[in-house]
Amino acid sequence: MMSARRIYMDHSATTPVDPRVVEAMAPYWSEVFGNSESSHFFGQEAASALEQARQTIADILGCQASEIIFTASGTEADNLALRGVAWAFWRSGRGSHIITTPIEHPAVGRTVDQLQELFGFEVTRLRVDGYGRVNPDDVATAIRPDTILVSVMTASNEIGTVQPIAEIGRICRERGVLFHTDAVQAAGRLLLNPEDMGVDLLALSAHKFYGPKGVGLLYVRRAVPLVPAITGGEHEGGRRPGTVNVAGAVGLATALRLVEDERPSECARLTRLRDRLIEGILASIPDSRLTGHPTERLCHHASFAFLGVEGEAVVIGLDLEGIAASAGAACAEGEPEPAPTLLTLGLPPEWSIGSLRLTLGHLNNEEDVERVLDVLPGIISRLRSLR
Amino acid sequence: MMSARRIYMDHSATTPVDPRVVEAMAPYWSEVFGNSESSHFFGQEAASALEQARQTIADILGCQASEIIFTASGTEADNLALRGVAWAFWRSGRGSHIITTPIEHPAVGRTVDQLQELFGFEVTRLRVDGYGRVNPDDVATAIRPDTILVSVMTASNEIGTVQPIAEIGRICRERGVLFHTDAVQAAGRLLLNPEDMGVDLLALSAHKFYGPKGVGLLYVRRAVPLVPAITGGEHEGGRRPGTVNVAGAVGLATALRLVEDERPSECARLTRLRDRLIEGILASIPDSRLTGHPTERLCHHASFAFLGVEGEAVVIGLDLEGIAASAGAACAEGEPEPAPTLLTLGLPPEWSIGSLRLTLGHLNNEEDVERVLDVLPGIISRLRSLR
Repeated sequence: MMSARRIYMDHSATTPVDPRVVEAMAPYWSEVFGNSESSHFFGQEAASALEQARQTIADILGCQASEIIFTASGTEADNLALRGVAWAFWRSGRGSHIITTPIEHPAVGRTVDQLQELFGFEVTRLRVDGYGRVNPDDVATAIRPDTILVSVMTASNEIGTVQPIAEIGRICRERGVLFHTDAVQAAGRLLLNPEDMGVDLLALSAHKFYGPKGVGLLYVRRAVPLVPAITGGEHEGGRRPGTVNVAGAVGLATALRLVEDERPSECARLTRLRDRLIEGILASIPDSRLTGHPTERLCHHASFAFLGVEGEAVVIGLDLEGIAASAGAACAEGEPEPAPTLLTLGLPPEWSIGSLRLTLGHLNNEEDVERVLDVLPGIISRLRSLR
Repeated sequence: MMSARRIYMDHSATTPVDPRVVEAMAPYWSEVFGNSESSHFFGQEAASALEQARQTIADILGCQASEIIFTASGTEADNLALRGVAWAFWRSGRGSHIITTPIEHPAVGRTVDQLQELFGFEVTRLRVDGYGRVNPDDVATAIRPDTILVSVMTASNEIGTVQPIAEIGRICRERGVLFHTDAVQAAGRLLLNPEDMGVDLLALSAHKFYGPKGVGLLYVRRAVPLVPAITGGEHEGGRRPGTVNVAGAVGLATALRLVEDERPSECARLTRLRDRLIEGILASIPDSRLTGHPTERLCHHASFAFLGVEGEAVVIGLDLEGIAASAGAACAEGEPEPAPTLLTLGLPPEWSIGSLRLTLGHLNNEEDVERVLDVLPGIISRLRSLR
């Protein structure tokens, strides 16, 4: 039986655009529409809006406006970071070793794979513990004279675990190695300050924090060598050509300001909902476990494994009840195999097919949580009885 | 003295979003907001809108929906075409020779440069005639056993010349060589049918035809080998990862349908305005000439060279009169050197610094043309007197 209102509990996959963001973007479709590289009035009007958006973001991140490059997505930002640095070092023959983790988002994981398979880079994939955490000492051990880049996500999209970024950053800086982090899941949930985090490159995506789809950014610390991964005209100083999506940049800046302003109260609210979800599910469903770290995790993120139950079947069961959830990562759905990330954490295969991710946000309240707690045990139980 | 209304005559740089397109995108910000790869209701609702947009475009281009990949720009589409094919052949060791022209947009020109300089591809840059046209026979002559790709723009952003694409396409198909065309300037101005054009890859950008900035597409003929140029999750079949900008895709499809429906009447209208501009300028300004082909040119595009006058100075002069124009290419402004394209056409340097591009569109009428004809001779004359 369908609930009267559909429940969206998949905020790590994407979020609705905040109406205040839609409003902020409105003038940039048909009124202030110039190409920001044009030297005439229409172009300069657009350029001014673009630079104001860039400054807003720089103020929030505590960096220089010139260190922000707008991209079309978090994925593209990660690609620019990895390919940009890799090719810059390749061109100058100064090393080709990359250190990363086995549980990165595919935007990083598959880019590193391609750099390795197609272009001959060497890759060390660090081990993670049972919660998916990297040990900073392992980073120190893995760094070699030819290491050009370390890439460790700020927090996991699949299991919510937050990494010890500042500690890894300190090690990288001491050793003179560049450090990139995919912070796509962290915006609006953790304080993002590249300087404090010790990162040289940091990727964000607007649609993960109530901004529009189709716009992301890469923070690039000044003096970091970067070969453009997309080549063309002069937009973004030639580091990311293609006419800039000014409406999108304004939308990203507005959304980031809003989630940052509201972060303390919203995170406290979501943490309560999350903890009620976790406690309720573990208490009511036998053979269930939390995946990822119990405390070092994103405030909106609850993820579970259920012995012998396919994650995608749970998602379908919830969808039939009007509840939108995800089987781990939104970007790799439709595969019934064990989730590689869960196998990496050391879960046995019969546990690793049963990943369920519930990610909370603006659209959720206590009633939604109680509704999930009402229906989920029955779904799991029915699926187990069908085996 | 400023005209009462600002005149925008730079439609090749970008266009305002058609209000009907803004309206078509509206539901996809905060209502139908799902990630099109999510398997639940919200995701499938978004996926359905995305696939409908893709089908609309396929119907217009006369191709299969599965042959359309959404990107964030025409630049990115060109990059995907060139890098995607180049790396696919590189991986399989089946040739590394690329044929292109010296007057491509930087999205193609600089990408070919990077493939040559960084990855060791061999490049033949065809000569063009005084109008910027490629001779198809030269393509036939340049093709070698190791040629993997020919890339020739459909029409020039700088000089408006339309290339003999179908003839080049026929040669490439006979010789079994893939053919890419940057058609960014052609949408809404020429009939775009990849099959008739004989092209295997074709790039478009929404903001050039009254769609939003931040979205483009690449047509890729089925069975064309393509390594993703951006790597990540499963969006667009893994060929272009990153959460799809559904609002943007709907906007692109809506804009393409509108400009295609209105193309016959609008092109006839713009051709009249264009020819009046050309005739008036050449008649009233001494030592002025049309650049690009007199008849085989885009219906909205008028471009000129003025002996001894810097293009950027003309643009500033017009801007002070409330008229927005461009000095050749919007993507390479701010450089007072002779335009490389004009030098390539054989113009002497003292002619090549004086490029002015006036590109017409929805925002223009006869009054605008007369206003340009009123003020431009005085601007050129004043600039010449200052030398």
